[in-house]
Amino acid sequence: VLIAVDAMGGDLAPREVVAGAVEAARHGTSLILVGPEARVREELAQHGETANLPIAIADADEAVAMDEAPLAALRRRPRASVRVAARLVATDQAQAFFTAGHTGAAFLAAHAEFGMLPGVDRPALAVIVPTRDGAAVLLDAGANPECQAEHLRQFGLMGSAYAQVALGVSKPRVGVLSIGEEAGKGNDLTREAHALLSTAPINFVGNLEARDLFSGRADVVVCDGFTGNIALKVGEGVAELIGQLLARELGSIIASDARLEEAFGRFTRRVDPSESGAAPLLGVAKLALIGHGRSTADAVRAGIAMAVRLANGTVVERLKQALAGRAS
Amino acid sequence: VLIAVDAMGGDLAPREVVAGAVEAARHGTSLILVGPEARVREELAQHGETANLPIAIADADEAVAMDEAPLAALRRRPRASVRVAARLVATDQAQAFFTAGHTGAAFLAAHAEFGMLPGVDRPALAVIVPTRDGAAVLLDAGANPECQAEHLRQFGLMGSAYAQVALGVSKPRVGVLSIGEEAGKGNDLTREAHALLSTAPINFVGNLEARDLFSGRADVVVCDGFTGNIALKVGEGVAELIGQLLARELGSIIASDARLEEAFGRFTRRVDPSESGAAPLLGVAKLALIGHGRSTADAVRAGIAMAVRLANGTVVERLKQALAGRAS
Repeated sequence: VLIAVDAMGGDLAPREVVAGAVEAARHGTSLILVGPEARVREELAQHGETANLPIAIADADEAVAMDEAPLAALRRRPRASVRVAARLVATDQAQAFFTAGHTGAAFLAAHAEFGMLPGVDRPALAVIVPTRDGAAVLLDAGANPECQAEHLRQFGLMGSAYAQVALGVSKPRVGVLSIGEEAGKGNDLTREAHALLSTAPINFVGNLEARDLFSGRADVVVCDGFTGNIALKVGEGVAELIGQLLARELGSIIASDARLEEAFGRFTRRVDPSESGAAPLLGVAKLALIGHGRSTADAVRAGIAMAVRLANGTVVERLKQALAGRAS
Repeated sequence: VLIAVDAMGGDLAPREVVAGAVEAARHGTSLILVGPEARVREELAQHGETANLPIAIADADEAVAMDEAPLAALRRRPRASVRVAARLVATDQAQAFFTAGHTGAAFLAAHAEFGMLPGVDRPALAVIVPTRDGAAVLLDAGANPECQAEHLRQFGLMGSAYAQVALGVSKPRVGVLSIGEEAGKGNDLTREAHALLSTAPINFVGNLEARDLFSGRADVVVCDGFTGNIALKVGEGVAELIGQLLARELGSIIASDARLEEAFGRFTRRVDPSESGAAPLLGVAKLALIGHGRSTADAVRAGIAMAVRLANGTVVERLKQALAGRAS
C-alpha cells in the first residue's frame, strides 16, 4: 500500500513529520510526502541517503494553519498540502492519507475529495484510549463540536464496526458518555442518543460515567466532538501532570535504579497518547488519519503504521455494512 | 460555627459519614448530624465514647437515593435528610451544610430553603483541582447539565470571587474551557460565553484547552455542568488507571523501599480528589457543600473542614459584591 503524508501539517511540521516518514520508509512503508517540493527535499536532506527509500514527493502549497478558518483557507488554496494528500487517495494513487494538521481542514479536504459513506451525516474522529486491561475506542474525539442524537447513533454503528477491526472484539460493548449511569441522567443530547442507540443493531450497554472510559466497561464510547475532545485532552493533561509530580517526588530515586527506570518506561509508554499515533476519521468514503497536533517523529511513524494497518484491512467495507444494518 | 451534616447522603452513608463526622468533632468541630435518629445513634455507638463530643442530632428521614428524581422525591418527603440539613442553615441553626448525596437534591433543598443570591440564575459546583504548582477552581462541575452563555458569565464572576478566598489569589485569571484557544474555536456556547466574559469585570484570559486545566494557566475555569463533570471524572479515571498501572509495574519495588513509599504517598495525596473534600454550591444564598458520592470517612472529614473554613470566611458576602459588579 501507499500512504500520502501531509508533510506540512502539525505544530512540528515539516521537521518531525519528515523524520517520522523517513523512519517508516526505512521499515519498508511506501510513502508520498505532500508539500512544497523544495522544502520537503531540504528536510529529506537532513536524513542522509534517502534516494533509495520508497518515498515519492507530491508538490503542494503550505498547510492550513491552526488559526485559519479551514473552509475559507481551502477555497483560497485548493493546493494546500492536506487537500492534495486527500486527492491522492481519491484518485487511488494512495490508499490512505495521514496529517497532523488542522482536524477541520482534514475533514473538509476528505469530504471534498472523496465524500461520505452512505448513511453518515457527520464523520467522527475515533481515538483509541488505554484501559486497565486493554483499550477502548472513543468517538467523536473532536471532528464535530455540535452534534445531534442521530449523529451519535451513527457513531455507535461506526464505532462498533471499527472496534471489531482495531481491537479485535467480536461484539463490542457500546456506551454513551454521560454524567450518571441511569438512562434519565445526562443532558438532552445523551438522553435522546440513549433512546436511539437502545434500538440500534449493536451491543449497547447504556450510559457510562467518564471515569469508566478507562475502566474497560465498554469497548466503544460515543459522545459529541466537544465532549470527546475535552475528555481526551483532560486525560492527556492529567497524565502529564502526574508524570511531572512523579518525577518531582520520585525522579532521583527512579534514575538511581535500573529496574525502576525500566518499569517506569513501560508505564509511560502505556499511557502515552502518541503511541497510538493517529485516529481515523470514520464516515468519509476513504481512509483519512489524523495525528496529534504536537506529533513528534515517533508519533508520526506510529500514525503511518496505523494507516498501513487500516489500509491493509477492510475497515471502510465493514463500516458500509454496519451503516446498512447488515451483520458483519 | 456549627455544620449540619447529612448523615444519610452518599454511597457509603451513614457508616463513613458518621465516622468522618466523629473524627471532625474530635478535632473540635461542632456538628449536627441529620438523619433518622435511631439509625444515627446506632452508627455513633460504633465509635466508643461520643457523648462528650460537640455532636447534636437532628431527626430526619432517609436520603434522596441516587436513582430517584430529586424534585419528586423532595416533594414526597419534605423531611428527607438533605432538606432538613438545608433548613438548619436557612434558620441559622447551622452556618453550612455538607452532603455526599445526590447533587441535584442538594441544590433543590438549598434553593427551596434559602434561595439564590441576587443576579444568579443557576448555581455552580466549584471544585478545586490540582495543578503543577498549585490549584485551580473548576465550575460548574455538575450542577447544571444544560447551560446558556449568561450562566457561564455568572460562573466567571462567582468563580473569580471564590478563588480569591479559596486560593488566596488577588486577581484570579479566568478562562473558558473549550477545544482550541482561539476565540472562534469551540461550540456555540463557548463562543457566546467568550464574548460575554470579555467585557465582565474580571481578569479574563480567554479560551483554555482541557489539558491546561492542570497546567496552571488559569485560576478559574468555567464551563457547563455536563462538560465540567466529564472533565472531573475523566481526571479521576486517569488518575485511578495510572495508579493501577504504576502499582502493577512498580508496586513490589516501591513496597521494598521506605523512601519510595513515602514519596509515592505524597504524590497520591496530591492527586487524590477526596483530599479537597467538598465543593461549595456557589450562587445559593447560604453555604451548601457537596462531597463526592463515594466519600470515605477521610473525605467527609476534609469536606467538613472545608465547610468550617468557608463558614469562617466571607465567601457569600464576596460573591454578592462580585455579582453586583463591585470590585472586591
